[in-house]
Amino acid sequence: MSASTAKTRDPTVGRCPGRPRSDATRAAILHAAYDLLGEAGLGGFTIEGVAGRSGVARTTIYRWWPSKGALAMEGFLAGMVADLHAPMTGSVVADMQSMLRRLAGLMRGKAGRIMASIVAEGQSDPETIKAYMDGFVRPRRAEVTALMERGMASGELRADLDVEIVLYNLFGALYLRLLMHEDLSDAWVDRLSATVLANCVASKST
Amino acid sequence: MSASTAKTRDPTVGRCPGRPRSDATRAAILHAAYDLLGEAGLGGFTIEGVAGRSGVARTTIYRWWPSKGALAMEGFLAGMVADLHAPMTGSVVADMQSMLRRLAGLMRGKAGRIMASIVAEGQSDPETIKAYMDGFVRPRRAEVTALMERGMASGELRADLDVEIVLYNLFGALYLRLLMHEDLSDAWVDRLSATVLANCVASKST
Repeated sequence: MSASTAKTRDPTVGRCPGRPRSDATRAAILHAAYDLLGEAGLGGFTIEGVAGRSGVARTTIYRWWPSKGALAMEGFLAGMVADLHAPMTGSVVADMQSMLRRLAGLMRGKAGRIMASIVAEGQSDPETIKAYMDGFVRPRRAEVTALMERGMASGELRADLDVEIVLYNLFGALYLRLLMHEDLSDAWVDRLSATVLANCVASKST
Repeated sequence: MSASTAKTRDPTVGRCPGRPRSDATRAAILHAAYDLLGEAGLGGFTIEGVAGRSGVARTTIYRWWPSKGALAMEGFLAGMVADLHAPMTGSVVADMQSMLRRLAGLMRGKAGRIMASIVAEGQSDPETIKAYMDGFVRPRRAEVTALMERGMASGELRADLDVEIVLYNLFGALYLRLLMHEDLSDAWVDRLSATVLANCVASKST
């Protein structure tokens, strides 16, 4: 998502296909897409709805995002990505705990409704799961894997961890509780973190 | 699901409301419901479809199951329940490992498609999640919790386990992989079991 090189121009001129996106218009569209996803889910998400909310012409949106799935995924990512970057405290365990709390907080709100509706839609449309995995899940997993590997290298975490399994222990638990409409309070998430991460910490005596 | 007390009768007589269910007819309906769920998911599940497959009149099915959701859930349970009871080997770890392999095996097939479609449907219909939780998830959790508590009492497992969290570590991982359309091979499930259960086993030295 690099910044567009377009200058803002009079919207009544220069409407040729391939015109660079205006940053402000693009941000308005993505913001409207994120809001609509949160209210209506992926099932009720339409380009028309985004056009109505953003005040941008439907034809303009279609020119920039050829499918509603592509727009939904980019709107979701734009809305989530700023909230999900973990602060680096120097303690991998502390960073993991705060990241899990932040993810659970997002799951309790609009982002959680979007995630649930993407997973639901994906059960009858494999392309939706593929887009969610490629655009959101795998990049996040790579970040958290790198964080845990730093902890293994520094000696904070056990050197023999199966990091992939640990990630499923943590994220699988949060997704299952999201999808089963169960409590995702900080207290529950802290119990999850404490149980799993205690088993990841290197023993003092070795 | 206690056996019906109905005697098999000529189906052309005695069709009054409230007539006890015939066991054979009931089994045929539930079997057809399970098959249809596996092929069409909950979204394509209809009483009409079950009537066509089972050869039982639609009106008869409606008399016994007032909603398609109730029939779908009972058909699913009837199809799954026999496969999910863990054999008791005397080792809680071995019983857990074999139960997780069996659940993953079901998830790879028709039952997995049903579970995924129930979870998907449940994201727009909370009653579906409630029925799934009450009819399937909570009774299974209670069984596995009792198994692990026996292991804690016997000294095979650590006495300080947070059993609820351990169950989410295991089942959350399997559900997430099911819903993200990822590999659920025995090899992967054995890695999951080994990682989580190694942390549950009581230390030899204490």
